[in-house]
Amino acid sequence: MPALITLTTDFGTASPYVAAMKGVVFGINPAARVVDLSHSIPPQDVRHAAHFLAGCVTYFPTGTIHVIVVDPGVGTARAALHIELNGQHLVAPDNGCWTLLPGSDSATVRRLEERRYFHEPVSTTFHGRDIFAPVAAHLSLGVTPDQLGPRVVRWQRLHRPAPVQVPGGWDGEIAFIDHFGNLITNLPGETLAGARSGDSRSPRAGHRQLQVCIGNHVVATQVRTYGEAPRGTPVVLVSSDDRVEIAVVEGNAARTLQATVGMPVQLRLGDEA
Amino acid sequence: MPALITLTTDFGTASPYVAAMKGVVFGINPAARVVDLSHSIPPQDVRHAAHFLAGCVTYFPTGTIHVIVVDPGVGTARAALHIELNGQHLVAPDNGCWTLLPGSDSATVRRLEERRYFHEPVSTTFHGRDIFAPVAAHLSLGVTPDQLGPRVVRWQRLHRPAPVQVPGGWDGEIAFIDHFGNLITNLPGETLAGARSGDSRSPRAGHRQLQVCIGNHVVATQVRTYGEAPRGTPVVLVSSDDRVEIAVVEGNAARTLQATVGMPVQLRLGDEA
Amino acid sequence: MPALITLTTDFGTASPYVAAMKGVVFGINPAARVVDLSHSIPPQDVRHAAHFLAGCVTYFPTGTIHVIVVDPGVGTARAALHIELNGQHLVAPDNGCWTLLPGSDSATVRRLEERRYFHEPVSTTFHGRDIFAPVAAHLSLGVTPDQLGPRVVRWQRLHRPAPVQVPGGWDGEIAFIDHFGNLITNLPGETLAGARSGDSRSPRAGHRQLQVCIGNHVVATQVRTYGEAPRGTPVVLVSSDDRVEIAVVEGNAARTLQATVGMPVQLRLGDEA
Repeated sequence: MPALITLTTDFGTASPYVAAMKGVVFGINPAARVVDLSHSIPPQDVRHAAHFLAGCVTYFPTGTIHVIVVDPGVGTARAALHIELNGQHLVAPDNGCWTLLPGSDSATVRRLEERRYFHEPVSTTFHGRDIFAPVAAHLSLGVTPDQLGPRVVRWQRLHRPAPVQVPGGWDGEIAFIDHFGNLITNLPGETLAGARSGDSRSPRAGHRQLQVCIGNHVVATQVRTYGEAPRGTPVVLVSSDDRVEIAVVEGNAARTLQATVGMPVQLRLGDEA
Repeated sequence: MPALITLTTDFGTASPYVAAMKGVVFGINPAARVVDLSHSIPPQDVRHAAHFLAGCVTYFPTGTIHVIVVDPGVGTARAALHIELNGQHLVAPDNGCWTLLPGSDSATVRRLEERRYFHEPVSTTFHGRDIFAPVAAHLSLGVTPDQLGPRVVRWQRLHRPAPVQVPGGWDGEIAFIDHFGNLITNLPGETLAGARSGDSRSPRAGHRQLQVCIGNHVVATQVRTYGEAPRGTPVVLVSSDDRVEIAVVEGNAARTLQATVGMPVQLRLGDEA
Repeated sequence: MPALITLTTDFGTASPYVAAMKGVVFGINPAARVVDLSHSIPPQDVRHAAHFLAGCVTYFPTGTIHVIVVDPGVGTARAALHIELNGQHLVAPDNGCWTLLPGSDSATVRRLEERRYFHEPVSTTFHGRDIFAPVAAHLSLGVTPDQLGPRVVRWQRLHRPAPVQVPGGWDGEIAFIDHFGNLITNLPGETLAGARSGDSRSPRAGHRQLQVCIGNHVVATQVRTYGEAPRGTPVVLVSSDDRVEIAVVEGNAARTLQATVGMPVQLRLGDEA
């Protein structure tokens, strides 16, 4: 059973680029097992790719080979990397796209230099086809990482902005907006511990009134899941990756609250009841 | 050869949710065979999902495992179900999304309760990752339905609104709008039997003039297929799933006729020629 | 290891059509290996499909079976074809969609006539499900091309408009616009040989000043790859398929330059420095 090769790109599928990468993979390893993760990363949005990968890569089994091509620096001096992380492989441009994964600081990283594993001639604008896909295919055939190029100890890193504790709560920001328009913040889910809906009529002892401010909007209804509030209600909840999330029930919070990635979020907890 | 696992969601692919589900499946069964059906179901549109499934599931072979995650009620009291239907498996939330499939009334249905087949901890907002994907993976490894939970005899059902026969024809509605903007009604194709184009200049004996009214528009050109009328012509034909369909040749009927799902459609047949 | 079956359609994925095709394939060959190339070809855009295929098919290995369903003429007298080309198989409607592939003039082409390999009843509007998918599945099971139908020697062809050499340069047009809004012309990359950026301040001997005119816009900055110019700069470069390409760095040239497929492009080279 050959290793899985996953593909994550910003290429869309109306252009032939993803299909060309698949062709190159199967041309090298006709028995390859290729799995699409996404071709809808917004163009050149390395930060979006990083949040995307942080939300899925860890679920894959040991030995999986992830190909990531969100690569505004293609053809420049930026390196092409092989990363070993928790028993999985990633091949990606050196732009930080993989560095929000847990454990990335201790990854084993190599620079892809061995041209025998490239698709020649290597173009200046499409390393997905010419470097990343063929290297992944060769890995799936048993080429070992040390054959790909020398280890490096420095690489580009992205960072999640740390939430800041302030009197009465936390200041954070919107880190990711999902397909439903749900706003995923950089605030850990545990910052909601002990909170209760600010609009609740039945305060319980030990629970503190919640307010989340975003732009000119205040969201004060806390729920465990979307269906606990009426359609159209803005709500605060813990996201499936354990962050504070703002949603509109069966609606689109990004549109309703005019929110964008990077916008500040203030979480405030009132005095204990 | 492990069973096929198909995925149908409203998650889009710019978010990591589909990829996380795939990771969970492969984490449990590294030899799994995963097939994307759709991640473009409109958000929370259970009825759309139901029409989608009715148009494709029956073609798959015995033993296929279909994972359906269009789930506005995630985390509430709604059940998670396993359905056996004509030798295929479905795992889906109990919201009726699978009940337009032929034979659904006589399906064998179980409530997913056996937590050993879940991905722990089970979140309140992402049962695709935490319940449906892992259960499907375990099924593909040979877990039997009776191990998943108890049988149930009641579940949510959707219904196709029945067309109504009226003097001179039928009243129905638009049941589904496809990617081309073609309008698929709830009228069976046989309601067109004996009809001829209302604008025909060569009426044949035994054929009756056709008119289909939708909003303020009247469509009177009947064809066997799109290419039989000039570009831009609104036409009536029998759809590939044997319903009355309204299309605009090489155009978009939904836009041209300002049509939406649920809009009434009147099919009228004139006196026999 | 069964042959790969690739799928290229204009069906989108919100409709059940692609899923139905996959169901039919797996219903005939449960061990099939199905790979999505694209379901985002613009509706009925045969020329787009042709450029798409020209950008990816050649990378696939011998024996691959490509299913192409961009088919405005479905159900009319247009033939359904099997094409053998460089050891690969294509099944496609006879509308020229495959004829920009290198070597297409010398392909072995058959008309799909053997109904035992179709999915009955054959509809008039969905030959993807009823003809192309089942024929591909049967091919993957070992059916040979000569069993599918008689050879034909005439078929629909598309042509790339040839670039025209004029005093001081070349006249061409935009052949394809990709997902990033990059404009791929019909001018071979070698027409840029010896050119240098028209805005360069350090002309090198033997290099000629470049200008590319498109609509009211003049692009004079030549680069090897996108990252060599500041964000937002319109640039000229050689595309990954060796054509002259116009891009906007980390932007969308189609939007910025208001360009559409078929729009004329003038490439001009000044006197040698």
